[in-house]
Amino acid sequence: MTDADDDMTSDLSVANVLAAAARTEILPLFRAGPGLSAENKLPSDRGFDPVTAADRAAETAMRRLLAEHRPRDGVYGEEFGRVDGESGRLWVLDPIDGTRAFISGLLHWGVLIALLNADKRPILGVMDQPYTNERFSGCTQGRSTTVFSHNAATTQLAVRSCPSLADAVMLTTDPDLFAEGAERNAFEALSGRVRLRRFGSDCYGYAMLAAGCVDLVVETGLSPYDIQALIPIVEASGGVVTDWQGGANPWGGRVLAAGDRRVHAEALELLSQTP
Amino acid sequence: MTDADDDMTSDLSVANVLAAAARTEILPLFRAGPGLSAENKLPSDRGFDPVTAADRAAETAMRRLLAEHRPRDGVYGEEFGRVDGESGRLWVLDPIDGTRAFISGLLHWGVLIALLNADKRPILGVMDQPYTNERFSGCTQGRSTTVFSHNAATTQLAVRSCPSLADAVMLTTDPDLFAEGAERNAFEALSGRVRLRRFGSDCYGYAMLAAGCVDLVVETGLSPYDIQALIPIVEASGGVVTDWQGGANPWGGRVLAAGDRRVHAEALELLSQTP
Repeated sequence: MTDADDDMTSDLSVANVLAAAARTEILPLFRAGPGLSAENKLPSDRGFDPVTAADRAAETAMRRLLAEHRPRDGVYGEEFGRVDGESGRLWVLDPIDGTRAFISGLLHWGVLIALLNADKRPILGVMDQPYTNERFSGCTQGRSTTVFSHNAATTQLAVRSCPSLADAVMLTTDPDLFAEGAERNAFEALSGRVRLRRFGSDCYGYAMLAAGCVDLVVETGLSPYDIQALIPIVEASGGVVTDWQGGANPWGGRVLAAGDRRVHAEALELLSQTP
Repeated sequence: MTDADDDMTSDLSVANVLAAAARTEILPLFRAGPGLSAENKLPSDRGFDPVTAADRAAETAMRRLLAEHRPRDGVYGEEFGRVDGESGRLWVLDPIDGTRAFISGLLHWGVLIALLNADKRPILGVMDQPYTNERFSGCTQGRSTTVFSHNAATTQLAVRSCPSLADAVMLTTDPDLFAEGAERNAFEALSGRVRLRRFGSDCYGYAMLAAGCVDLVVETGLSPYDIQALIPIVEASGGVVTDWQGGANPWGGRVLAAGDRRVHAEALELLSQTP
């Protein structure tokens, strides 16, 4: 944390405080099942659902902080819906993106925080992984900035160059999410052209794209809060995020993100005819 | 680390020293691409392959330590093959299990260290994740013991109870690994019966099984060093690991691991007829 995190003058400092508050709520509920029982001091009644509890507690904490520090802005969160504010700006929150990974004890999930300007363009995004102590953030208003922090170390993020699909590593969350028929066929056609495809990524895939570890993320069926925070992170790192027709700023749905525009263009050729 | 790690009297202390040495070799090469360039002080010539370099350096370091501390034991590693020793015991090493996750910057990979007794039964296993600072270990000789350490905290591992397949969370690495035809069909039949299936797990899936976060891991096409270290971890945590016919101690190939024997039996019914 920098001094800016305390003074709340910048939107990024507010986002960082939100991410820290979400961590506090979520971490005690990660892997809170009976297995790691020495650390389990949680309710043991059958109906207890750690991921729902963590989702709700984290979003509640973030909404409370926004009401305090940004009372004129609106809020749209996965758990408690959308309330527009006076400023026209909108904070878009997903307290846990990757809930299926979360409930399985896996690591590819995160807290997503986006700030949209009055034109509803995402200008700031944070992806925080509480358990690994990793935070990816990007700002695209004015001079673009992007940062990765892990434990005490902070570095810049940057996509890597990749000349063609044949060289690309591609990530997606789950093959079953692509609807059978044209959508699934388009995904398989793309898969047949890349060097490697890998499943199980959720929001973590976009973070790895921004970090220059992979070249392509393709997904479908997203909600706005699944993608809005990730757009500034990828864009500020030099990448591009569109829908499958090449339209900027996807409001969920089908998403294509690439680090290198050549790979994005090649993938778009294969996806853009999908009805 | 405990005092035992220094005195090398126990096999677990040797395994822990091996894991620590592997970490030292691997960590500088994780995410060592151009993206996180501020931390990248590595050779930049085109032919440089971080995962190959990390694999070889880690196995070399572990073999050197075994030659020093267990000179009478044999060693079988992914990178440098098998040499049997005088004792009949065999250390089985996979310096990086989950290399595709590793090269993608993802987190579900680990260092695998197994010790087999003279009957070639794995009696000790360690799975270490250097980046997240997690280590899972299990010993099944004499009194079974199993431990999970993360940063400074250490806890016991234990599988969770799961009454039936319909309640089970299942992990596997990649759907494409199941051969088209009978093998793929058996996997899909099993998928249709579980509550949730999730991809992208590699060795991390067995660790989550031992930790009581998931109920079932099913895989195919494994090598001996992909599975031997994970058997004592799952068994010492109360779970069961077999091949698809229910045979104990799979030497790679098709593997079925479960936390609850009821789930294992149900899954076996669906898989055991696969030719």
